[in-house]
Amino acid sequence: MNNLLDGINETLLMGPGPSSVSPTIYSSISKTTIGHLDPKFIEIMDAIKAQLQILMGTQNELTIPISGTGSAGMETCFVNLIEKNDNVLILSNGVFGGRMIDVCQRLGANVDSLNQKWGHAITADMVKEKIANTNFDLIAIVHAETSTGVRNPIEDIAPLINATNALFVVDAVTSLGGLEIQMDDWGIDALYSGTQKCLSCPPGLSPVSFSQKALDKLMNRKTKVPNWYLDLSMIANYWSGKQRAYHHTAPINMVYALYQALYDIIEQNPKTVFQKHVDAHLYLLKKIEQLNLELLVEEKYRLPMLNAIKIPHGINDMEVREPLLNQYKIEIGGGLGDLAGHVWRIGLMGYTAQNKNIDRLFTSLKSLL
Amino acid sequence: MNNLLDGINETLLMGPGPSSVSPTIYSSISKTTIGHLDPKFIEIMDAIKAQLQILMGTQNELTIPISGTGSAGMETCFVNLIEKNDNVLILSNGVFGGRMIDVCQRLGANVDSLNQKWGHAITADMVKEKIANTNFDLIAIVHAETSTGVRNPIEDIAPLINATNALFVVDAVTSLGGLEIQMDDWGIDALYSGTQKCLSCPPGLSPVSFSQKALDKLMNRKTKVPNWYLDLSMIANYWSGKQRAYHHTAPINMVYALYQALYDIIEQNPKTVFQKHVDAHLYLLKKIEQLNLELLVEEKYRLPMLNAIKIPHGINDMEVREPLLNQYKIEIGGGLGDLAGHVWRIGLMGYTAQNKNIDRLFTSLKSLL
Repeated sequence: MNNLLDGINETLLMGPGPSSVSPTIYSSISKTTIGHLDPKFIEIMDAIKAQLQILMGTQNELTIPISGTGSAGMETCFVNLIEKNDNVLILSNGVFGGRMIDVCQRLGANVDSLNQKWGHAITADMVKEKIANTNFDLIAIVHAETSTGVRNPIEDIAPLINATNALFVVDAVTSLGGLEIQMDDWGIDALYSGTQKCLSCPPGLSPVSFSQKALDKLMNRKTKVPNWYLDLSMIANYWSGKQRAYHHTAPINMVYALYQALYDIIEQNPKTVFQKHVDAHLYLLKKIEQLNLELLVEEKYRLPMLNAIKIPHGINDMEVREPLLNQYKIEIGGGLGDLAGHVWRIGLMGYTAQNKNIDRLFTSLKSLL
Repeated sequence: MNNLLDGINETLLMGPGPSSVSPTIYSSISKTTIGHLDPKFIEIMDAIKAQLQILMGTQNELTIPISGTGSAGMETCFVNLIEKNDNVLILSNGVFGGRMIDVCQRLGANVDSLNQKWGHAITADMVKEKIANTNFDLIAIVHAETSTGVRNPIEDIAPLINATNALFVVDAVTSLGGLEIQMDDWGIDALYSGTQKCLSCPPGLSPVSFSQKALDKLMNRKTKVPNWYLDLSMIANYWSGKQRAYHHTAPINMVYALYQALYDIIEQNPKTVFQKHVDAHLYLLKKIEQLNLELLVEEKYRLPMLNAIKIPHGINDMEVREPLLNQYKIEIGGGLGDLAGHVWRIGLMGYTAQNKNIDRLFTSLKSLL
């Protein structure tokens, strides 16, 4: 019988994620599976909490990976923190801001949004104007908008939100491990991420952290969380309670991979890893200029790990991306929504963020353009 | 820096899951990660659909693995099929029946339940009496109750439910790959499973299948599914639509592992694999009798893959299970709820279901009792 897995060859993943996975992680994910209540596994769970606290800049007790991909982290934050008719504000400038609106509406929130043009950042001034004389229960924003390559300046926006009673929720799917995050200093109440971006793990887990204020909201809900699987009040008993009460079976081998990914970043020093992303971005920029290409986003708000390049006039998106994938074994991303056909998204995340990969991409691109 | 993964040693997993993973699967899960929209990955997704259709005994188009563990499959079935105030009947005789009640209540259903004593099966007669002159929108039951070792005779119960208008939902977390399932013949409308039981994969995915009747209910909902992450109407567009629209990033390497697990079972022939579970169970039974131990469940309703042994009077649960794990490197399960301290749960699932493993367990048990 033909086994399709035999046909899988190494592909350089330079799209919006998953990013290429480092060899240390492949060997971790295939370590022997042990039980989810085994004391050795519980030790690994505790270590991951401490590792995530470092990368997220937080002391939050409730800091754990959720058993699902990044979008499960988004769902987790909102389903635990929103009750019907809560007033929610989404600061949106891309696909993932839009997704937040959909998630919150499904949960029965009254959702208002501040909609910035895709490719442009949401600034503190815009937020200041929007939230003056309002009373939101929760305000959410995407740190690194993967659909456009925009970095929203959450460190500038944070004090404005902290001055209100609103819970402050941040999507750090693409930023965690690639950009500095200071959850406690910035007064972020709930933050979620994914493993397949700057952590360079395969997709499958979503690190999440809740502040005491978020936890208070959760514990004082009038109604049960309308989602058993993602009910953090129960999951917390497994991940950090004294009893380690069984909730659901954790994805053991994915947890190994996440542990290793965090281990590698901390061993290298997170600051060094952040700088690596900046350096790779600057190297990419040089290459882009050499080919007379342009980035979508203005310099101030560019993400180092996700670069949206404008597709030159007269060039067909798929006529480049298809041979790039099939002949050159390099995956880059296309645009989403209105940007489909107009941009390529080049990911420089984690293990992918190396000059030799950028060289390989541009040698190939050059021959295709 | 000390790496905790270095301390992980092979443990024989003979508890209620995860089961021991076969070498073919460890090598599959560590294959190079490719993109979730890569045509090669889409080919694997299509193949998994066909593989699951074989094991589930169905032609259902909507047959896919959900990106979460078994409990995410439970959540998926209920959140997609239940609208507020729907009348739901749960046939419950263990932890997982109880969990169904909790999940459905959180979704706003009017939940009624038929509660059988733990360790005993729910029979067709009981169901017949319960559903006479009622009008349920959905009736759910656990096929293999992992908390007690009971096999509920769903093939006998099915015709009774099929004679009503109710959707018929079955938890096959522990049965899939170990017991015959004929979803289409038995008129099951929604079925979910997990990877870490008889499929012998690490935990992390939940295979789910929906009949046309279930799909009709989903497509005619008055309200959006109140769970973005698990909304099957959107997930289906990624897994089986023509457009392969991006929903969330699939856990690529877990999908490899599932493909390999299903590949191995189909190559061996599912019937042979089911018989292997029966044979292992009978071999275990002989060993149990030799030690004068007893099973909790009466013969007719015993699961082959999950055997609840009564702990003899005067024996302390943890004084056996702890050295078994720490010295002999064998994990078995304890009881849950009222059965805590009163039973051990011995899993014979997938790769674990081998006589040599049973021998190893009983040699160790003998020296501990």
